[in-house]
Amino acid sequence: MAMENSPHKAAIIGGGVIGGGWVARFLLNGWDVAVYDPDPEAERKIAAVLANARRSLPALYDTALPDEGKLIFCSSIAHAVKDARWVQESAPEQLRIKHRILAEIQQHADENAVIGSSTSGFKPSELQEGASRPGQIVVAHPFNPVYLLPLIEIVASEQSDKAFVEGGCAILRDVGLKPLVIGKEIDAHIADRLLEAVWREGLWLVNDGIATTEEIDDAIRFGFGLRWAQMGLFETYRIAGGEAGMAHFIAQFGPALKWPWTKLMDVPDLTPELIAKIAAQSDAQSGALSIRELERLRDDNLVGMMRALKKSGSGAGGTINDHEKALSDKKPASGPHTLPQTVCRQVPQSWTDYNGHMNETHYLEAFAQASDTFMALIGADDAYITKGKSFFTAETHLRHLAEAGAGDTITITSQVMMAEGKKMHLFHTLYGKDGGIVATCETLLIHVDLTTRRACTPDADVAGRLKEFGDAHAKLAKPDGAGRHVGQTNA
Amino acid sequence: MAMENSPHKAAIIGGGVIGGGWVARFLLNGWDVAVYDPDPEAERKIAAVLANARRSLPALYDTALPDEGKLIFCSSIAHAVKDARWVQESAPEQLRIKHRILAEIQQHADENAVIGSSTSGFKPSELQEGASRPGQIVVAHPFNPVYLLPLIEIVASEQSDKAFVEGGCAILRDVGLKPLVIGKEIDAHIADRLLEAVWREGLWLVNDGIATTEEIDDAIRFGFGLRWAQMGLFETYRIAGGEAGMAHFIAQFGPALKWPWTKLMDVPDLTPELIAKIAAQSDAQSGALSIRELERLRDDNLVGMMRALKKSGSGAGGTINDHEKALSDKKPASGPHTLPQTVCRQVPQSWTDYNGHMNETHYLEAFAQASDTFMALIGADDAYITKGKSFFTAETHLRHLAEAGAGDTITITSQVMMAEGKKMHLFHTLYGKDGGIVATCETLLIHVDLTTRRACTPDADVAGRLKEFGDAHAKLAKPDGAGRHVGQTNA
Repeated sequence: MAMENSPHKAAIIGGGVIGGGWVARFLLNGWDVAVYDPDPEAERKIAAVLANARRSLPALYDTALPDEGKLIFCSSIAHAVKDARWVQESAPEQLRIKHRILAEIQQHADENAVIGSSTSGFKPSELQEGASRPGQIVVAHPFNPVYLLPLIEIVASEQSDKAFVEGGCAILRDVGLKPLVIGKEIDAHIADRLLEAVWREGLWLVNDGIATTEEIDDAIRFGFGLRWAQMGLFETYRIAGGEAGMAHFIAQFGPALKWPWTKLMDVPDLTPELIAKIAAQSDAQSGALSIRELERLRDDNLVGMMRALKKSGSGAGGTINDHEKALSDKKPASGPHTLPQTVCRQVPQSWTDYNGHMNETHYLEAFAQASDTFMALIGADDAYITKGKSFFTAETHLRHLAEAGAGDTITITSQVMMAEGKKMHLFHTLYGKDGGIVATCETLLIHVDLTTRRACTPDADVAGRLKEFGDAHAKLAKPDGAGRHVGQTNA
Repeated sequence: MAMENSPHKAAIIGGGVIGGGWVARFLLNGWDVAVYDPDPEAERKIAAVLANARRSLPALYDTALPDEGKLIFCSSIAHAVKDARWVQESAPEQLRIKHRILAEIQQHADENAVIGSSTSGFKPSELQEGASRPGQIVVAHPFNPVYLLPLIEIVASEQSDKAFVEGGCAILRDVGLKPLVIGKEIDAHIADRLLEAVWREGLWLVNDGIATTEEIDDAIRFGFGLRWAQMGLFETYRIAGGEAGMAHFIAQFGPALKWPWTKLMDVPDLTPELIAKIAAQSDAQSGALSIRELERLRDDNLVGMMRALKKSGSGAGGTINDHEKALSDKKPASGPHTLPQTVCRQVPQSWTDYNGHMNETHYLEAFAQASDTFMALIGADDAYITKGKSFFTAETHLRHLAEAGAGDTITITSQVMMAEGKKMHLFHTLYGKDGGIVATCETLLIHVDLTTRRACTPDADVAGRLKEFGDAHAKLAKPDGAGRHVGQTNA
């Protein structure tokens, strides 16, 4: 089978919610995936996870993902792991079962394949007990939903070669993940220990009738949850310490650790050594930015995330919507082959509106992306702009001829209508999932000096490349709809 | 002084990072604010917090906030609290100091004013000890940055009247906050107990050399932090339990509480009663949605938040950017008084682009908002659309005449050019912070039946109101730039 020889094959052993997430992560990034799971429901369950993944993972990106790989279901571990570069075990959390499965995997897998375990609790040295090639087995602990959340905790024992672990991390990065290599093995790795601490405290609060599950969730999602999504714990506290920094924060709030704030009282001694260690690590982590810069970064992120939450009304988004409504109530009222393809992407859910289709704003977002791509094609790229010159849009005409919906793959081709002096006149055509024209955009850009904010001619390189496109495109037919004004009757 | 008689005055006693955040929250929501802080640096510190708040809080909203209130610095508590409806104490976390300040506040404040304390640790009954009117004092515990994060933990003792507490909550909602009333007082309330548990575990991990502060932060922000920002702990676990639900999750993962995952081993017994209690509370909280619906809500939120993080490249945003780049590299290359004001808003930071000004996409976003507002004005509002009819944009022409930047307040007025049958032809004019025209938008909308997706005439009510506007606006001059095509030379 051709698939078996693919250089990009992953084997997923165990296809529940976590295994299914691994399937989606590899498959939607162009890998072939072979699944082994004795559960007769596995195919149905994985299909459900895949359906979720297909509607959300591509929406993270402003470019199309690779074509999906091939998915096959295998009746044996031997068949599934053959020629796989990555084998992921997501079996039930019992060491005896994992040992049995890992042994069978090693019997048939390539010895250069990485064998990752999704275990949340076991240490790699425990997984490796009695293994034929212990160094091949590492903890690769993901977070649900695996197809969206980037974190993978990677834990290897001393049995694993460093270069081998780094190779595994490169594979994970290739499918959009963020491997976090933990240097020292410990039960439950890092994230689950933190979660466990909160879970336990949450259980006490519920048990003692202090708060309901909803109140506890609200205490998280309307407050520190929004900080943690971007910064985590220590960087947040670094900001709380203000200009005096991390050591000041610990000195100020450290004593609270000894207060009767929880029923769990065993705490480390805040020795000067520990304080210095934390302060130094915080410096290494965040010292490149000032507190003010960190604050603004934090605030821009909070605004961005909370604006995103407005669409669903979840958490802080709902609060903002309610408040906004209250405030408002108070007021008076290279398709055609010779043209470059400048956009190829999926329409995200967040681009659709109350009319159940892609909103006009995001048509222009896509067309602006096309203009940016075309600018880069002629050398007016990020570096050029950084040097102080760019194009400003002066005038734009949009036509909407059909509808596009969430999940549609759209492409845009771009034609130069005129390129002369400071002017660049483009015509973008947006094609929908069936290849038909959905919208067009005619736009006039003016080349400017970003310092003076005035029009000027492009640098010779850019002008030259633009002229090449202009000359070639001048031989093409004038696109239908060019030169129209709004409301013009068709000729 | 007129200010002293304002029905909306807040007094902020203690103006550090937290007090300054309270100042900003009230001030930017139109309240007059009087500050008392003996620190000679207070004015400078508060100005810094206000500068941050002014560039971020308005950016959460698609409508302008009220005009800022007046800010005054007072040399006494007596002066500051006079006639204030809300008095917020943010003094150092020492009970003796707080008692002294609260006594002085009560001596001079209106007896109907709410006196909130920003304390993170003390119970209201402790704050109320020896108070002249104990019921007037409540814990109102905010989260940094107070001007952005909506959560306020409200804790009252039995000394406080329920209606009084509810009145206080109404004030907080009025300035965009989310008061969370905690029914039973406990040291450190809810959120800080959870934070304390994680902080302690984090300190152990650092102390024992398992992970650095950065690794711990990464373990949070690339994974569960993104879930918590929208859902918190229990709702996340509810999803993890899958179709079997919360009780299944606890049964499956509960035993892990007894595992040696942390050094803090005192845990509550998972009695059937406790499990049933948690399951029931989770049902009450989230039972209205199926697991599938919760998953999609979660995914849409994750996409939205992570897309927002792409702009700064923080956390998951950086991971996505890197991956996207890798993927791309692989590919070939009522202003004028007679017209309705349909938009009044500040330009968010997230609306600006590499050219250092508002991006064309967001001009159309603002103009689309203007069309929506105008539709609502003629009765084609949410309810009308829900009933199955709407307007689709057919054609749009944009002109960019000047630049707008982050923080600028922009307004749009809308003129009906033509309203006939299924057609609605509008001309929007966008004014910048100095009142000059920054951009215009001429747009033709077609009335449609959302079921057939075909053009049809509007309902009589809507058609009638549209005609009224059309007839009135027909008497006005045709706006400059109407009827242009792209690249047309000026007459």
